[in-house]
Amino acid sequence: MAETKVNNGVNVEALLAAREALKGAPEAAKFTWRASCKWNNGTHSQTKILGFHGLGEEQKHKTEFSFEADHPEVFASEDLGATPIEYVLVGLASCLTAGVAAVAQNRGIQLRSVESLLEGSMDIQGILGMDSDVRNGYDDIKVTFTIDADAPRKDIEALVAQSQKRSAVYDVLTNPTNITVQIA
Amino acid sequence: MAETKVNNGVNVEALLAAREALKGAPEAAKFTWRASCKWNNGTHSQTKILGFHGLGEEQKHKTEFSFEADHPEVFASEDLGATPIEYVLVGLASCLTAGVAAVAQNRGIQLRSVESLLEGSMDIQGILGMDSDVRNGYDDIKVTFTIDADAPRKDIEALVAQSQKRSAVYDVLTNPTNITVQIA
Repeated sequence: MAETKVNNGVNVEALLAAREALKGAPEAAKFTWRASCKWNNGTHSQTKILGFHGLGEEQKHKTEFSFEADHPEVFASEDLGATPIEYVLVGLASCLTAGVAAVAQNRGIQLRSVESLLEGSMDIQGILGMDSDVRNGYDDIKVTFTIDADAPRKDIEALVAQSQKRSAVYDVLTNPTNITVQIA
Repeated sequence: MAETKVNNGVNVEALLAAREALKGAPEAAKFTWRASCKWNNGTHSQTKILGFHGLGEEQKHKTEFSFEADHPEVFASEDLGATPIEYVLVGLASCLTAGVAAVAQNRGIQLRSVESLLEGSMDIQGILGMDSDVRNGYDDIKVTFTIDADAPRKDIEALVAQSQKRSAVYDVLTNPTNITVQIA
């Protein structure tokens, strides 16, 4: 282990301490993340992120984050924001990337750069209701990392594998997640 | 049907025409959405969205969209952007909302406002590797719509149900999606 020699900007000591603290208080590990969305016009909406619940109490981001979403012009929309299905790629990319940095820190590997390209393929015959055998969402997502780090390739491969193993977004996409939709 | 009397800003005629056109050219229905992500420091990254492939050729958004992601301060991070798992809620909210608007337009229902609150619960014992029986991602997502529209409640419920049925993001979350992660 060479944690003290590397600095990827992740406070692994604090995370390990949190893990110890949570062992005695598993209720504090229950988080609820929230988003509130407002329709603008057409397929254009705005979603805001501010508060969440965790460690037994209400929490707040330092600032509110706001995201515009829309469909592109090829779907006869105005393209005033990223497409909803593209936000899924944003979540996946950033989750795996944060994981790579955290695992690298824990394993004493200095990262120099981490880049990734995500490609999600989707047959729009699904969402257009043309063929009930075609699913609505991605039939496949490919993530390609380019990592420059002070480690042999097999250690970099192991970093990425461990990041996948602990990724919240990778999990919700590769495994079924229960969603309830209701009207107030 | 009363399409001509309502205006939710969705060009349903163009979508129905596209569906007709795609019947003769199913290859054009194959889309690839893309994102490219760059690690900054710690758990902070930036993901950009610009090009995609569809209708048989390369396409581009009118502008590039860029998203900062990070972990919050309670995870010993700097909170310089929304948390990756929150981006999943942004995608789900905006996908269902766009669907409600499109279905309402097609059914001749005038919308006045569409708001939603999303809550995703997650036990962080999963991502912290404390308990292998706890999954990393959401164990449950609840979406609550508040819709003001010129229609009885049962028609509004049917709108939301149809939006779920055709939502790409709802599909990738509720059903397993294949993801391949590789190193260039």
